[in-house]
Amino acid sequence: MLRIINQQADVTAELQRICERTNDEQVLHKEATVREVLQAVKRQGDKAVLHYTAEFDNQILNAEELRVTDSEFDEAYKNISKDLLEGIRLACSKIEKFHRQRVPKNWVSFEDDEVVLGKRYTPVDTAGLYVPGGRASYPSTVLMNAIPAKVAGVPRRVMVTPPGAEKRISPAVLVAAREAGIDEIYRVGGAQAIGALAYGTQTIPKVNVITGPGNIYVTLAKKLVYGTVGIDSLAGPSEILIIADQTANPVHVAADLLAQAEHDPMAAAILITTDAGLAKNVQVALERQLVDHPRRLNTEKAIAHYGLVVVVESLEVAAQFSNEFAPEHLELEVSDPWKLLPSIRHAGAIFLGHSTPEAVGDYLAGPNHTLPTSGAARYASALGVETFLKHSSIIHYSPTALDKVAGAIDVLATSEGLPSHADSVRRRVQKDE
Amino acid sequence: MLRIINQQADVTAELQRICERTNDEQVLHKEATVREVLQAVKRQGDKAVLHYTAEFDNQILNAEELRVTDSEFDEAYKNISKDLLEGIRLACSKIEKFHRQRVPKNWVSFEDDEVVLGKRYTPVDTAGLYVPGGRASYPSTVLMNAIPAKVAGVPRRVMVTPPGAEKRISPAVLVAAREAGIDEIYRVGGAQAIGALAYGTQTIPKVNVITGPGNIYVTLAKKLVYGTVGIDSLAGPSEILIIADQTANPVHVAADLLAQAEHDPMAAAILITTDAGLAKNVQVALERQLVDHPRRLNTEKAIAHYGLVVVVESLEVAAQFSNEFAPEHLELEVSDPWKLLPSIRHAGAIFLGHSTPEAVGDYLAGPNHTLPTSGAARYASALGVETFLKHSSIIHYSPTALDKVAGAIDVLATSEGLPSHADSVRRRVQKDE
Repeated sequence: MLRIINQQADVTAELQRICERTNDEQVLHKEATVREVLQAVKRQGDKAVLHYTAEFDNQILNAEELRVTDSEFDEAYKNISKDLLEGIRLACSKIEKFHRQRVPKNWVSFEDDEVVLGKRYTPVDTAGLYVPGGRASYPSTVLMNAIPAKVAGVPRRVMVTPPGAEKRISPAVLVAAREAGIDEIYRVGGAQAIGALAYGTQTIPKVNVITGPGNIYVTLAKKLVYGTVGIDSLAGPSEILIIADQTANPVHVAADLLAQAEHDPMAAAILITTDAGLAKNVQVALERQLVDHPRRLNTEKAIAHYGLVVVVESLEVAAQFSNEFAPEHLELEVSDPWKLLPSIRHAGAIFLGHSTPEAVGDYLAGPNHTLPTSGAARYASALGVETFLKHSSIIHYSPTALDKVAGAIDVLATSEGLPSHADSVRRRVQKDE
Repeated sequence: MLRIINQQADVTAELQRICERTNDEQVLHKEATVREVLQAVKRQGDKAVLHYTAEFDNQILNAEELRVTDSEFDEAYKNISKDLLEGIRLACSKIEKFHRQRVPKNWVSFEDDEVVLGKRYTPVDTAGLYVPGGRASYPSTVLMNAIPAKVAGVPRRVMVTPPGAEKRISPAVLVAAREAGIDEIYRVGGAQAIGALAYGTQTIPKVNVITGPGNIYVTLAKKLVYGTVGIDSLAGPSEILIIADQTANPVHVAADLLAQAEHDPMAAAILITTDAGLAKNVQVALERQLVDHPRRLNTEKAIAHYGLVVVVESLEVAAQFSNEFAPEHLELEVSDPWKLLPSIRHAGAIFLGHSTPEAVGDYLAGPNHTLPTSGAARYASALGVETFLKHSSIIHYSPTALDKVAGAIDVLATSEGLPSHADSVRRRVQKDE
């Protein structure tokens, strides 16, 4: 049963409990395992990758079998419906269009005395995309990771994903990969896949950036290799917060809450509403929609532990609670969502109005669905083209310009006890005596 | 003695050795200490902060003494020269001007069927800046971290720095902080300072982003708290790579190499030149400049271990080796640096021409001097305004727009086994029968 509380309850404590639901100090022993796997892959390459694939994924592979072949791609196209292929292609084109608009431009500023300052953007050489297997094997994940890397102009884009039963990978995932411009896929998952991408093996190339969601082992591995390579973020279970007033449709709100809860027993689904009647109606509608839900058990678990409705007296109070939670997904199901928008400080993605369910953004609106979770929206943003780009600062000084700042640099460098810093300027501006 | 090799030697292996000079697998036991400190600060707050300050910094403080007082700021202004104050103010204004030009703008795109997509930028609520103490206590570090946070519009900006001897903090650091808009400073350093900023204590606020360089304990602590808060990067020792042709002045090049080496015995200083004569002359000039260098011992160590000159046959080869190294700082001391620029793929900051020593950028050119080290320029960029901002994706669909994509979302959601995702759209577009 979806729990309803009101703003006189300790809402802040409840939101914090839900926000920190993965803040698990018991991960230390998992981290030891992950560290061992990473070290083994670093030292032994393919041999360790194959060893752990047998141990953790129960698939006996040899090195030649790691890479997905052309004929497997061809096969995959035969095994998906025309409708699904069209859906993938529609999503591809909308996601690509959005991300193309977001490519940052090189920039220069011409200052006095011929000084030039600027930023020059370049893509990383190689990107590695992790795509989970099993229940969470989603073609949409492939698109949301692969397309920004392609749009950024990354020359080599590699994907890893666990070998399924009989070493097969989901046809929808393979098709999504090819449609999004990925031809190089290795069937390896878990911490061993992250290790292979971070350090390189005989078969799998070392990459510069690793992106994509995964289970706790993958996430721990990403954190450990951060610094050796760049990573997108440390993804936790998904979450939605909906702010709704009396204009919201309780059946739609309930469906949106369930669309989050069905992901994972750890998913969070929160409604904050100004309308006590809506709260009750959502509770009832949600129970009804749960009755014949194919993932009923896990979905109910999520609702029971991390589902919540809060009744508040105003939308401003709702916005404040939302900002405390800093949700990954935020729906504004209110009569004037644009008016409420300026009160929102922290959210990964904001869905405005009654006809914008989160699912639109999950699949094909265009913006990325890889978003900060567990309160990370307080400081982090969606994955994007910039995840695969970096910029170099550009600085050019003329002799005249250097002359004018030489005195200031001298005093600053001297105050810091760095004589050669001062010297490197002084020697350049000294007139030959 | 600065070592000279030519391109027939195994340059790649040498560059890799220097690049990975901090890739120390012996850090595990330090990490255990850091983890313990962080856990203690998380559980006990101020009490643990004061305990470790006594243990590691030999300063007995009580909680009331943690925060720097107004009168200490006033005192600091009296204790620095007018020239230094002017230098700090000149640097402030140039750094602020550059960073103001780099503030990303909110962005919306109006699509067909009343669809609106966009990005909305908001600053983090609270930023924490770490400023090292002791030998590396630099006012320029304060400016380069504090100004982007201020320009980003971060409402609360907090600084931590180790208590010096007799609990004092360098006057230049205090003045730089106030000039850059920081009034809230706590005298605490090391892993305990990072813990205090990540978790909050009775006295020190929990922040959303921690930036700034530090020793290995600080860096390990930043890595461990990453995910609880955002961080700028994992800073390693500094490095410069200079590409020079026969037009470079060997005395200037030698000074620039030493300006890097004087930072730290682990600093790296590399010259790649097409001119064997220049190589020899730089070697000689550097020896001469070292003779009465106030930091001779450490500087010589850096040059001996991580100094290198490579003589190559062309600037293109030089650029290739530079890209392999991915230097934090890159100087192009060649006749036409703009022509060489497109060949550079990875570098934190690029200094073009004979009148642009790195020191210009270290202090006041404007771009940030907090740059990716140890090869991180392959995937990372300078600290900037965006370090203190995050963006929320904005998505608005009209009923008509939702209707048009409903079928595609249905097939995609169904293929992923997520019925409520499909349902949340289907229920909205169903015509009432």
